[in-house]
Amino acid sequence: MAIRLGKNNYGKQRVRVLQVVRRPDRHDIKELTLSIRLEGDFELAHTKGDNRKVLPTDTMKNTVYALAKQHAIESPEEFCLRLAEHFLSRNPQVSRVRVEAAQTLWSRLSVEGKPHPHTFTSSTSEKRTAALSATREEKTLHAEIEGLVVLKTTDSAFENFLRDQYTTLKEDRDRILATAIRAAWLYRDNPADFDSTWHGVRQTLLESFAGHDSESLQHTLYAMGEAVLKKFTGIREVHLSLPNKHYNLFNLSPFHLDNPKEIFLPTDEPHGLIEATLSND
Amino acid sequence: MAIRLGKNNYGKQRVRVLQVVRRPDRHDIKELTLSIRLEGDFELAHTKGDNRKVLPTDTMKNTVYALAKQHAIESPEEFCLRLAEHFLSRNPQVSRVRVEAAQTLWSRLSVEGKPHPHTFTSSTSEKRTAALSATREEKTLHAEIEGLVVLKTTDSAFENFLRDQYTTLKEDRDRILATAIRAAWLYRDNPADFDSTWHGVRQTLLESFAGHDSESLQHTLYAMGEAVLKKFTGIREVHLSLPNKHYNLFNLSPFHLDNPKEIFLPTDEPHGLIEATLSND
Amino acid sequence: MAIRLGKNNYGKQRVRVLQVVRRPDRHDIKELTLSIRLEGDFELAHTKGDNRKVLPTDTMKNTVYALAKQHAIESPEEFCLRLAEHFLSRNPQVSRVRVEAAQTLWSRLSVEGKPHPHTFTSSTSEKRTAALSATREEKTLHAEIEGLVVLKTTDSAFENFLRDQYTTLKEDRDRILATAIRAAWLYRDNPADFDSTWHGVRQTLLESFAGHDSESLQHTLYAMGEAVLKKFTGIREVHLSLPNKHYNLFNLSPFHLDNPKEIFLPTDEPHGLIEATLSND
Amino acid sequence: MAIRLGKNNYGKQRVRVLQVVRRPDRHDIKELTLSIRLEGDFELAHTKGDNRKVLPTDTMKNTVYALAKQHAIESPEEFCLRLAEHFLSRNPQVSRVRVEAAQTLWSRLSVEGKPHPHTFTSSTSEKRTAALSATREEKTLHAEIEGLVVLKTTDSAFENFLRDQYTTLKEDRDRILATAIRAAWLYRDNPADFDSTWHGVRQTLLESFAGHDSESLQHTLYAMGEAVLKKFTGIREVHLSLPNKHYNLFNLSPFHLDNPKEIFLPTDEPHGLIEATLSND
Repeated sequence: MAIRLGKNNYGKQRVRVLQVVRRPDRHDIKELTLSIRLEGDFELAHTKGDNRKVLPTDTMKNTVYALAKQHAIESPEEFCLRLAEHFLSRNPQVSRVRVEAAQTLWSRLSVEGKPHPHTFTSSTSEKRTAALSATREEKTLHAEIEGLVVLKTTDSAFENFLRDQYTTLKEDRDRILATAIRAAWLYRDNPADFDSTWHGVRQTLLESFAGHDSESLQHTLYAMGEAVLKKFTGIREVHLSLPNKHYNLFNLSPFHLDNPKEIFLPTDEPHGLIEATLSND
Repeated sequence: MAIRLGKNNYGKQRVRVLQVVRRPDRHDIKELTLSIRLEGDFELAHTKGDNRKVLPTDTMKNTVYALAKQHAIESPEEFCLRLAEHFLSRNPQVSRVRVEAAQTLWSRLSVEGKPHPHTFTSSTSEKRTAALSATREEKTLHAEIEGLVVLKTTDSAFENFLRDQYTTLKEDRDRILATAIRAAWLYRDNPADFDSTWHGVRQTLLESFAGHDSESLQHTLYAMGEAVLKKFTGIREVHLSLPNKHYNLFNLSPFHLDNPKEIFLPTDEPHGLIEATLSND
Repeated sequence: MAIRLGKNNYGKQRVRVLQVVRRPDRHDIKELTLSIRLEGDFELAHTKGDNRKVLPTDTMKNTVYALAKQHAIESPEEFCLRLAEHFLSRNPQVSRVRVEAAQTLWSRLSVEGKPHPHTFTSSTSEKRTAALSATREEKTLHAEIEGLVVLKTTDSAFENFLRDQYTTLKEDRDRILATAIRAAWLYRDNPADFDSTWHGVRQTLLESFAGHDSESLQHTLYAMGEAVLKKFTGIREVHLSLPNKHYNLFNLSPFHLDNPKEIFLPTDEPHGLIEATLSND
Repeated sequence: MAIRLGKNNYGKQRVRVLQVVRRPDRHDIKELTLSIRLEGDFELAHTKGDNRKVLPTDTMKNTVYALAKQHAIESPEEFCLRLAEHFLSRNPQVSRVRVEAAQTLWSRLSVEGKPHPHTFTSSTSEKRTAALSATREEKTLHAEIEGLVVLKTTDSAFENFLRDQYTTLKEDRDRILATAIRAAWLYRDNPADFDSTWHGVRQTLLESFAGHDSESLQHTLYAMGEAVLKKFTGIREVHLSLPNKHYNLFNLSPFHLDNPKEIFLPTDEPHGLIEATLSND
């Protein structure tokens, strides 16, 4: 019998940084939460307790703050690229760096209709994330959105599905469709402006969800992915993960009341989940 | 020795309802999550297992859907009042009804700059809640906001504080101030429009936070409460609960880098908490 | 119009400390998470930004570690008492101190049946908490348990309840009863050993839940509270908060299968909630 | 430009079931939360809204209850196998079924030292999970444990590590080591008794953590994986994911107190993370 060490990695999670840029007329802020993981030649650390090639995770943390000071954080995507380059260029024992950066979405406050110079709000449950996997040869960079909750009250059906002995679901020509969009996309070439592209993809996802005449959540997922790939030709691939957040018509007939699609029971448990990757060849 | 039953209540939590109003040109939606609790003459249920005065919590749940059907949900405040009146008027054994309604904050989606007739988004971590405690004699109705996260990068200090043998904190003339506002207010008389008042209070809290020259979070809390009471004279009392979400300057000197208030470490644990009630006599 | 500052407090939340006692043959550990809040003469801090009576919350945090070093942590109850005494005796501007201490429940690991000298596990979702409210005149100390999940498959009924037009619930002579016990009790006089009393109350709650022939969750709540007060005469009052974690019989008849109370659907939303305080006069 | 549908799946999440086995002298219970996902020939559902090959996720849910009724739930692993076989044998359009089953860990209550016939407690934050990916040709079945929290107060060091310009961490010959074990293992051949093997792996993980003279968390991870593979030769591969839950010595010197490894500050953010797969060839 031979025990063998297979794939392994180590790193630091939940490293949080806020950067303030102090301009004469206004302050700008960027806040990120980072995850950094290294792969490489760490066999002896595992098998012998020999740490000579192990850069401490505490050092990874310090590096985040030192690099943020030396180069302004432009976008989560660019900060991931900078961190990966730093670790790859200085650590020959490292073969792959994975970095994820989740951006806290701060908005500048409006006071009496005018943007305030130094006050911000952040009341969103949406998350913007960048995820990079980089070696010295290639980089795979995903941009992501998570927690973008949408609901439409009509233009959604689910009919003509497969039935078996355990099927009790009724056909529905006009139902509520609701989901919490999670999308991750891969750039063919990095865009000139990561921020405006991210916001453009977000709006395209919303508008294609709204405008689609849906025969199922699969059908709408495909329409959403297709809309993104058609509009953003620099995107090679988009992955969508859409929970089906069920809103069930509540049965009011025991109370001698009708319910013409007015009163619904929202429920999270159980829920459907639809996932697919679309690519643009 | 005599065992005595003191204060007691029972009810149903996390009752969720969505109402769709289908107009010719557009749909409107309201979504609430309700908590209902009854107090009253329930001694025999506890001591003897006699349920003859116990309205099942399942019936409380059904009542939510039946009343929503018969009367459109106008606001969380009004739906609380309706539910309490229903239970008090039909259940002589009940002396007090407490209802809380948390509204899911849906916004109508804009598509190409125009409001979409039937698609909505909800990506906020803010909560709007109404909380009612009602007897046949009196009603106490609180409106609440929770999770309204704000941050300012300047105009905040903390100096000249009390020191003892365990004090190591340094004075700070210019620090970041951040909090997640929770506010609950009590109406002297119910306003004509609960929705616009709630939004007005929200904006007043934000603007007073932004505009204040802060000597401490206590100082800013008072300014925020005062601004609300001065602007909304129908409000008798406002309670504010403000965590101090610390953003600590990161020490870059070990790396021979200065840090003129640019790079901060956000931290949730531990955190300060400041609470106070202001009233308008 | 006169704005008035009413009740107010401030303090530090989520202060975490682990203490290791290094004995020759074994190590012992105690881990607490603390919340400290002060009330007192803080009007000028709010109204004028005058911090001269404000002990920083950062100092409260430091005090936890300094006191833990100087006096071993015996129990969460005793550490609350020590902290409150510290702040009251040195801060004339403080009129009331509230301290909560939640203990992380570590157990010593057994290796080949023997207690290990320095390894511990903590895989419980239960919480043990002490909550103290202290002035110079009086102290109110609650001991608490939270998240103690129990389920019985029989000896539970719910029948002969009140019915109205919205009642659809069926009577049930033999149902599952499940809850997550939260109990808080008040000592008449502090016990000699807080730890063994806490564990005794916990076991009494479990055994009375198991042994009761239940006509409702109210009925069982009362039996549980009564058992605690009868067994622990040093306890003056016990408050119980019991969610009714519903396990609904799943309807298998569409599949031509019977279901003699074998297959259930657990659900958390909505759920019942029963609360009462029992006292021993 | 050609849009192409790549990998896709759909299914039902958070399907909860409790099974009661009613024996003359005692009841036994099993509670699972299931996730079911199907891959297969679903292209037309996405591209054309043609649902004729789509088995509703509602039917997947019903199937869980119907199969639980017809065959007692033995273990999460066996129930995953049963569900996958059901969907594969009846749905030619399905090429792969993935099922995850998380078991709620109920323990029979002891009353006066004797096992109670029908009352159970569940106060653990640990999770036992089985995860199956099955096609008609092959099955990959992982058994998992998650949230097994352990801490040792000594026999742990981290020294002689790599240093760069951002390294400030001090060498430590004697530190606290704490983690929340997540382990997933792959059976070469399925064991006769999934339950006793799972409990055996759990105990082996605990004892190897306790007994190891650690030079790093990587070093201990390897020792834990090696111990599992050596003791359970039917296991082909084990994956370990270990957060480094830091307990930092609190600096008491500003208060003129020493701290000979007695008072620590537990912190979750940031934290290290060590992951590796070990296999037995």
